[in-house]
Amino acid sequence: MKGVFYPKSVAVVGVSANPDNLGRNIMLNLIDFGFDGIVYPVGPKGGAITTRRIYKSVVDIPDHVDMAVILVPARFVPQVMEDCGQKGVKTAIIETAGFREYSEEGRKIEDEVVRIAKEHEIRFIGPNCIGVINMENGFCVPFPRLTPFIRKGEVSIISQSGGVGLSIMNHMAVEGIGLNKFASVGNMLNIDAEDLLEYYIEDEGTKTIFMYLESIRDGRRLMDLAKGSPKPILVLKSNIGQLGQSVAASHTASLSSDDRVVDTAFQQCGITRVHDVTTLSQYMKTLRLPLLKNKRLAIISRSGGHAIVAADACETVGFELAEFPESFIRDIEKHFRASVIKLTNPLDLGDLFDLDVYFRIVEETLAQENVDGVVFLHTSVARTEHDPTKNLVGKLESLSKKFNKPVAVYVSANSSEVASLRRTFDFPIFTHIVEMFRALKLDYDHSQAITITASKEVSPTFVVEKQKVQQLIDTASKENRDLLLNEAVDVLEYYGIPTSRGSKAVSAEQSRDAADEVGYPVAMKVISGQISHKSDVGGVQLNLHSGEAVREAFNDMKSGIEEAFPQARFDGVMIQPMAVGGRELILGGRQDEQFGPVILVGLGGIFVEIFEQATMRIAPVSKSEAYLMIEELNGSQILMGARGSKRFDIEAVVDAILHLSQLLTDFPQIQELDINPLRIFHEEEGCLALDARIIL
Amino acid sequence: MKGVFYPKSVAVVGVSANPDNLGRNIMLNLIDFGFDGIVYPVGPKGGAITTRRIYKSVVDIPDHVDMAVILVPARFVPQVMEDCGQKGVKTAIIETAGFREYSEEGRKIEDEVVRIAKEHEIRFIGPNCIGVINMENGFCVPFPRLTPFIRKGEVSIISQSGGVGLSIMNHMAVEGIGLNKFASVGNMLNIDAEDLLEYYIEDEGTKTIFMYLESIRDGRRLMDLAKGSPKPILVLKSNIGQLGQSVAASHTASLSSDDRVVDTAFQQCGITRVHDVTTLSQYMKTLRLPLLKNKRLAIISRSGGHAIVAADACETVGFELAEFPESFIRDIEKHFRASVIKLTNPLDLGDLFDLDVYFRIVEETLAQENVDGVVFLHTSVARTEHDPTKNLVGKLESLSKKFNKPVAVYVSANSSEVASLRRTFDFPIFTHIVEMFRALKLDYDHSQAITITASKEVSPTFVVEKQKVQQLIDTASKENRDLLLNEAVDVLEYYGIPTSRGSKAVSAEQSRDAADEVGYPVAMKVISGQISHKSDVGGVQLNLHSGEAVREAFNDMKSGIEEAFPQARFDGVMIQPMAVGGRELILGGRQDEQFGPVILVGLGGIFVEIFEQATMRIAPVSKSEAYLMIEELNGSQILMGARGSKRFDIEAVVDAILHLSQLLTDFPQIQELDINPLRIFHEEEGCLALDARIIL
Repeated sequence: MKGVFYPKSVAVVGVSANPDNLGRNIMLNLIDFGFDGIVYPVGPKGGAITTRRIYKSVVDIPDHVDMAVILVPARFVPQVMEDCGQKGVKTAIIETAGFREYSEEGRKIEDEVVRIAKEHEIRFIGPNCIGVINMENGFCVPFPRLTPFIRKGEVSIISQSGGVGLSIMNHMAVEGIGLNKFASVGNMLNIDAEDLLEYYIEDEGTKTIFMYLESIRDGRRLMDLAKGSPKPILVLKSNIGQLGQSVAASHTASLSSDDRVVDTAFQQCGITRVHDVTTLSQYMKTLRLPLLKNKRLAIISRSGGHAIVAADACETVGFELAEFPESFIRDIEKHFRASVIKLTNPLDLGDLFDLDVYFRIVEETLAQENVDGVVFLHTSVARTEHDPTKNLVGKLESLSKKFNKPVAVYVSANSSEVASLRRTFDFPIFTHIVEMFRALKLDYDHSQAITITASKEVSPTFVVEKQKVQQLIDTASKENRDLLLNEAVDVLEYYGIPTSRGSKAVSAEQSRDAADEVGYPVAMKVISGQISHKSDVGGVQLNLHSGEAVREAFNDMKSGIEEAFPQARFDGVMIQPMAVGGRELILGGRQDEQFGPVILVGLGGIFVEIFEQATMRIAPVSKSEAYLMIEELNGSQILMGARGSKRFDIEAVVDAILHLSQLLTDFPQIQELDINPLRIFHEEEGCLALDARIIL
Repeated sequence: MKGVFYPKSVAVVGVSANPDNLGRNIMLNLIDFGFDGIVYPVGPKGGAITTRRIYKSVVDIPDHVDMAVILVPARFVPQVMEDCGQKGVKTAIIETAGFREYSEEGRKIEDEVVRIAKEHEIRFIGPNCIGVINMENGFCVPFPRLTPFIRKGEVSIISQSGGVGLSIMNHMAVEGIGLNKFASVGNMLNIDAEDLLEYYIEDEGTKTIFMYLESIRDGRRLMDLAKGSPKPILVLKSNIGQLGQSVAASHTASLSSDDRVVDTAFQQCGITRVHDVTTLSQYMKTLRLPLLKNKRLAIISRSGGHAIVAADACETVGFELAEFPESFIRDIEKHFRASVIKLTNPLDLGDLFDLDVYFRIVEETLAQENVDGVVFLHTSVARTEHDPTKNLVGKLESLSKKFNKPVAVYVSANSSEVASLRRTFDFPIFTHIVEMFRALKLDYDHSQAITITASKEVSPTFVVEKQKVQQLIDTASKENRDLLLNEAVDVLEYYGIPTSRGSKAVSAEQSRDAADEVGYPVAMKVISGQISHKSDVGGVQLNLHSGEAVREAFNDMKSGIEEAFPQARFDGVMIQPMAVGGRELILGGRQDEQFGPVILVGLGGIFVEIFEQATMRIAPVSKSEAYLMIEELNGSQILMGARGSKRFDIEAVVDAILHLSQLLTDFPQIQELDINPLRIFHEEEGCLALDARIIL
């Protein structure tokens, strides 16, 4: 993959001397960005450009060529690729549009391109992209005319839209954030976003990775790569609208829209999802600072008002103001005139105007053990302070490195002053207080996430009766139907998830006998492949107290359903003992197209219906993840024993989650699974699946 | 108040020729901003500055002086004010610091200044502020040296911190947002923030008002002014941390922290609270556009990727994509080459490069009746497009005016291109898509709020037994105690809030008799001025089914409490009928220092305890506000009859809210009032206060 970013000799195919020619733009970009290799312009008309000969074909180039950048009409691309193959070019960037995304004809050309590339073992980016920028060697081949607008830095980008990628680089330039590498991936016929991510994770110059994605091709691979990445990965995932509109057949499905699954997956593998460019650029800045390892900050401010705003933001995002020990206050007191300003955190520098003293105060503050980071607010920079300010910022940068603690420098000044500081230092200059604290919070979260990911807990595997489940599924698949209620309950039992058991009965008498056996009162539920919402059709009878009541209920249910839903096949009923006490949860899972099996848990009843509360994880789920799923539920305090009430059997639910995770992982055929309700009892009393649906 | 911003002759007091002199900065600022009046420098040493004579005292100035800007050490301020009085100066800005905020001595000087100002009828801003800027006449007197850094525009600012105010103006300058007037208010000894707000609301040049507040002095006046303002008012209210720490004695108090009250009050009077400068500046921009009257937007984009990001944002903030009728699509189709791009909303301009065509498409789109606003995304502006882009933006501005619909123009380009557009047009140029949509949402909300505020619904007044409540409160006040349980219940009854009645009993026999009268089962609750959490001390017995049980319960309760809490006076018990069925709410109120009586409602039980859910309004509450309080409750669907269940008697709760609002308004002596629970029954079955606490 390195060849994509570090070619030594490049053919730009599609160049003419015409000022409107886009290939010409690529040539000029390479020159302006100071590309350190050799460039060969290629164009059918020949001629000259920037005092260079334009070759009529790649094969005419007298020297070896590492890479071809191709921007010719789509119908000519196969020939150019063929030429590249002849010439031994092993890497290409195809910027041309007008393929699959354009027409059926285009799709055919695309297939042809793929075939030729395969034949000649050419790896390529595109088509339908704006190409690549590498700030390390000046390799800059997007077709819009660019001048060096952004500094070299540590952020590398993968973008599924060239336009959005350029916009984000413009924002980075304004904020003084440096770029390392950029790649616009286009139709991803050969090299895809995950391939590039894998490369960036290893790439030395890249410290932070940003991806703009409109779709996710291989969610599992993305997760695996991210889990193994020591570098922070930020993703702006768009195109959420239409995905959310898929029709939901079960609770689980409606509570786990594709976009919520993306959120869950990202969280699980340590990807930080951003939703706007403001957050993105703030975060890119804080990530350049040493990690914030704990929550105790010191705020040092030249302006009282800014100190107040900062203290608010500090509290709002959940940080603490470090307490300054008396001895430390004595130490810094000597810098102040005999004034009445109370030295505390936030520290108001008040009428102290000596910037060298600021530096010494920050140094002494960073040396405090209970200070995890410093926010320095530098305001209203007068023109006479231009040079001292530059001097101070430089010193703060080295202090941050020396103490390995973040020093977040906020500057309020006019735009030219800020721009000048950003030109001078490859060190983040913040201009928005609240936004800066939000980003520091993300930074802190990242430092915590790294610790968690590092633990690499393995999901447990249980001994289960896989073969029996396989048989049930095979039978149902053959009959082209979902599992029946009694089968679904069996599946749970085979996989170690406790159910309220019960037995199937196909007549009034069998029902009564079954009820006699399980003990009164009992619940009766219809078994039918055609009925998914049992209670809506009178298919559920609760609290039946006698054999007579059971007989009657059976006959009523059977005739009622047969009359109202003649199209439904009545396969009998399930007789279950009534569960008493406890609380209801919903437990479920489904297969996601991008990420595979997803497990979901929610509080039952009005919680799930009105608050739409549920937490998710991509399977396989680890034990601590399963605990977290429950803890994260808004209202989980009820289960944990809030306000002196008895704790519920959380461990039993964790166990059920882990077994369900194994079931969904073992059987990708199970499209959706709902356990609704899962009744949970008090500590050590377990939980029971009272009802189950399995859709294949 | 106009004199503060439009003086004709100004004395700047505290000027010397020393380059470090801050008074000199003020002089130079006035010159650089092109002040249209006459300026007289004043300083004790005399001399000359900018070829002007420095007068030794205000009284030496030969001409009439409208305004004095004072920046001399605090101890000299009284004399300068005295001089101003002598000279007949009626307006002053005192920028000097070192008063009340500095020392006891400073406080004394401050008092002296107030006295002199009163004697001579001088109105003044400050002290301890950075003064005023008026872009209409170049009156610019902050002491930091400023060059004209911001364009003249329509936003006027009141800031309780000079530093924060300057920072925000710097941000506005970057975003191309114009300033009309700025005032830093300092210690507000004479002219305060509300006075300035009142002026800005009337001021012709001001179209949008922004306030930075660290405290609220007169919440009621602020609300009244805001309610009467046709101009949008944005407030960034800081200093929330310490306020939130006040110890809470009741549910109502803990659920209505001072900062939540601020939120409520602002919402009620139509003030938009912003929490960060990004949102603030985006909102200042959208407010410059015509109001967005409905939710149907058209997105027109040069880049497919940007269109996707915009469509997401459109959906996320709750807007709709206007549907384009077939006839309209036929109309705009003629602008496109015979391409396969599907013309829909968002409209991808694809390979259409003619900026004049863009203009015509936007015009045709705006002409559509079902399009309420257009978002135009202009990306990757090439250098050759510099002039056509300027031309286009100018035309889009006039289209927006012509159709009186917002056209939000987003531009992605390098910073100098954006800066150049912003210099050219006094029309908002957005550079962040998601943030722009969020701001458009605020704009839409504002257009809705205007409609609501315009209705000016009056809060109802009921016939109540005020005199009787007065007596109860007077008695308790005299005895220096809060109201007892039975008194609190009486107060509610006197004010038309239904309670479960019941009667007081002081012996076992009386209790039994009372129970016989109300009917079994009954509840028994202790009455004691010293016991606030009755159930914690065994002071509540529920479901007593017989006279014997009542007698026993009385004796147990009395002896138990007397033994465990000998310090508590046992004033008897309350015997109430047991309320059956229904759901529990909590209804309460308290006096807020800034805003007066606040009414609160929440769902009872775990909802209030775990989710901390409650909604509030500042009293007096109107009928539709009371409805909204219930509707806004997260989970209110339960009461409204969600999923086929029966609706509860919302009207009864509305009625109780309105009566409570009247009670708290009539009796500011009531510090806190908790009705917990208020039992609400099904439709037309009313509600009942089962328990009540009133703290004086």
